[in-house]
Amino acid sequence: MNQQTELLTRLRAALKRPASETGDMGLMTVLEGVRPEDIAESSRDLSNPEVLAIFNGLDNERAADLLSLLEDEATGYILEHAPSVRLTDMLDRLPMDDAADVLNEASPEKAEELLTSLQKSAPDDAEEIRDLLSYPESSAGRLMTDAFVKLNANMSVNEAFAAVRDSDEEVETLSDLFIVETLSDDRDVLTGIISLRELVRAGARRKDPNVKIRDFMTTDIISVSVDTHQKECARLIAKYDFTTLPVLDRKHRLVGIVTFDDIIDVLVEEFDEDLMRFVGSDADVMDKRTPLQIARLRLPWLMGTMALELLAGLFIARFDYVLIKVALLASFMPVISALSGNVGLQAAAIVVRGLDTGHVSLETWGRSLAREVSSALIMALVSGSILGAIGAAWSHHWLFGMVVGVALTCSMLTASVMGTLIPMLSRRLGFDPATTAGPFETAFQDVIGYTVFLWLASLMLPLLT
Amino acid sequence: MNQQTELLTRLRAALKRPASETGDMGLMTVLEGVRPEDIAESSRDLSNPEVLAIFNGLDNERAADLLSLLEDEATGYILEHAPSVRLTDMLDRLPMDDAADVLNEASPEKAEELLTSLQKSAPDDAEEIRDLLSYPESSAGRLMTDAFVKLNANMSVNEAFAAVRDSDEEVETLSDLFIVETLSDDRDVLTGIISLRELVRAGARRKDPNVKIRDFMTTDIISVSVDTHQKECARLIAKYDFTTLPVLDRKHRLVGIVTFDDIIDVLVEEFDEDLMRFVGSDADVMDKRTPLQIARLRLPWLMGTMALELLAGLFIARFDYVLIKVALLASFMPVISALSGNVGLQAAAIVVRGLDTGHVSLETWGRSLAREVSSALIMALVSGSILGAIGAAWSHHWLFGMVVGVALTCSMLTASVMGTLIPMLSRRLGFDPATTAGPFETAFQDVIGYTVFLWLASLMLPLLT
Repeated sequence: MNQQTELLTRLRAALKRPASETGDMGLMTVLEGVRPEDIAESSRDLSNPEVLAIFNGLDNERAADLLSLLEDEATGYILEHAPSVRLTDMLDRLPMDDAADVLNEASPEKAEELLTSLQKSAPDDAEEIRDLLSYPESSAGRLMTDAFVKLNANMSVNEAFAAVRDSDEEVETLSDLFIVETLSDDRDVLTGIISLRELVRAGARRKDPNVKIRDFMTTDIISVSVDTHQKECARLIAKYDFTTLPVLDRKHRLVGIVTFDDIIDVLVEEFDEDLMRFVGSDADVMDKRTPLQIARLRLPWLMGTMALELLAGLFIARFDYVLIKVALLASFMPVISALSGNVGLQAAAIVVRGLDTGHVSLETWGRSLAREVSSALIMALVSGSILGAIGAAWSHHWLFGMVVGVALTCSMLTASVMGTLIPMLSRRLGFDPATTAGPFETAFQDVIGYTVFLWLASLMLPLLT
Repeated sequence: MNQQTELLTRLRAALKRPASETGDMGLMTVLEGVRPEDIAESSRDLSNPEVLAIFNGLDNERAADLLSLLEDEATGYILEHAPSVRLTDMLDRLPMDDAADVLNEASPEKAEELLTSLQKSAPDDAEEIRDLLSYPESSAGRLMTDAFVKLNANMSVNEAFAAVRDSDEEVETLSDLFIVETLSDDRDVLTGIISLRELVRAGARRKDPNVKIRDFMTTDIISVSVDTHQKECARLIAKYDFTTLPVLDRKHRLVGIVTFDDIIDVLVEEFDEDLMRFVGSDADVMDKRTPLQIARLRLPWLMGTMALELLAGLFIARFDYVLIKVALLASFMPVISALSGNVGLQAAAIVVRGLDTGHVSLETWGRSLAREVSSALIMALVSGSILGAIGAAWSHHWLFGMVVGVALTCSMLTASVMGTLIPMLSRRLGFDPATTAGPFETAFQDVIGYTVFLWLASLMLPLLT
């Protein structure tokens, strides 16, 4: 962390100096030998024009890397303000999946301009980036690269080695090598996989030049389609410890591979998203946004919660005669709302994670619900008894304790059923279950909890007063 | 998913048949050719004795893998019930880091028994597992493996190739090769890294047999210490897209490497943990536990919330004369508590993630606080004005609206300050900031929100009635 802070301080000092000065402490000197990843990290604390100045001061190679590592907003700013010729060169340098990612942050006109210009110098690359951008966001098609090594099943170990050695510099990973059969339409069908590790070892074990790589390639292949969601790719890579995952197009032809480092980025990104959605904010609220922008992002959630909680207020207003008669009831309202909210959120979190990891499925919803409700029943009975006892002691009235205890038990049970069913229902309806959890869940629980509580109390009012 | 469900159905059917029957539909037949990862996934839905039966029906290689892939509880069960001789063989087969992980689930006596027995057949392995287990949980020392390829800086490309080819079968990854200088005490100092990819390419470019690998190895190395937390290892691997991370002991000697697949597991695990802690439950509550066990895990959180919310109740009770006079105030209590809770949780979530990713640091707490409070101020003023207007319209009394609006503004601001400071404070005090967020945060906010609200109302009571 210290090294990172030092870099930031030196960058800030250099950026403050007039552009005309090119002394020892200049920007280029500070940037010398620094990794693009470190620059990207520091740039989170700098303004967009400052990041642009750094981008301009970097050699092409690191500038290209930086472009793909920056936050989306900063990338967008650079794309609008840096010279197009240089940007085209960057797109040419970057792995195609990163280039597509970068272009995704440009305005449609800018993206078109850069692609047209790239078309002249590298028509194949431009074509491929267009292809990648045609796949839906967060899909394997968007994540994949087509720079990988293809071998033929009839190659000998030595021929395979030569092919690896002479493969394109742009090839992103050599960990896994793909054995394909090329069809008449020039597209490849994947028939086997062999790791570079296996190939190296094979070189030692099999001196016989007649041994073909088909003899020791893996044919039991797990692949995804271009439309597969990135979360599913992450699940497969995490489950099987793969370094790469082959991607097939809709006609089952090999069109790309997803590599583990993309998956690590996906995991980090989804992690942020899920956590943030659960507390009702957005993954991008952090970092460089102004307070006004942050407020604008978070306010809709707050307004939604406000509307729902006012609904709870309406119910409370209906029972205000009860509250006036037994003011102590008001003291127990926060407990009932908080405990029900807690149980509901826990249930929702468990179901949402279960749906994501594929462990909870819509077909077996009954099983998940049954298990959640049985544990909620135990918790509700325990909590209800304890709160009932406290209520009875506090009010010196056993009936008051009963109202409080029964109300808590009922509302906790309702909360657990809703916490389980709402995420499942929203998955069935095609929404992201994580967004339906969080603050809205709490608000629903409040409406139910308060209503059950005050309604029970109103029934027993003749006995309570 | 379908294939997975089918496997589960077939396993269940096979497990129901008496052990004496060994017909075509027997357990062994079902297990034929199935990947251990798929068996592990299915086993989450089976009881521990059923998992043990599967373990017993597997060949040694897949049984060892299964053991390292199962949930901790199932691993523990198998360790207690499977024959020790077979378990010792599994420990011998597994990569040392996985073996240490597995043993971690055994009772101390059982672990000692297995290690003593391993000592006889493979004294080095036993020694190394003991070493690994001596490092703190969730540290790089616990995650690392010592099965990697070591080269010498003076080797030629061909010599290096031969060393890779003849390296131990147990070596976990060949992606990165480590160049070390061996000291007099037989320990190694890391001087460079070269990837197998670079070595293969080097073979093509440099035909000169005099070229040593020191000429093209990377010497700018990022490493971690055995005590580094796994989250920090994950951050580095994710940031730099490394496949491996060298681990140095306290005397800066190379003792192991952490591989990317361990890091993917760490990310998935931390992901679950953080999400679950935020909603106040535990990462392990899911899956195979009985409702009673789940309830026992979640009840302490609920009891904590109950205690804190009763504190809020105490404050409410102090102001019950206000509520009796202006019963409508009770209708606004849920809104105030929910909105403050929401703002506080958002602030906490942002700070907790920032602390984890290294982007928020304790040194710059003032900056984080200032930004959070400025955006909260905007949100509080907007929400307060809206709620105030609603309150005035509902009660036909502008002063009532003012009380409601001001109370909401104050409690949202307090919530945002606390949501930012509590996680930072708990990090400083050495606790995990994620555990201090969640339900407790909500409860604190309730205490403050209700108190501010009713206190303001009591001040204005003469004007309100």
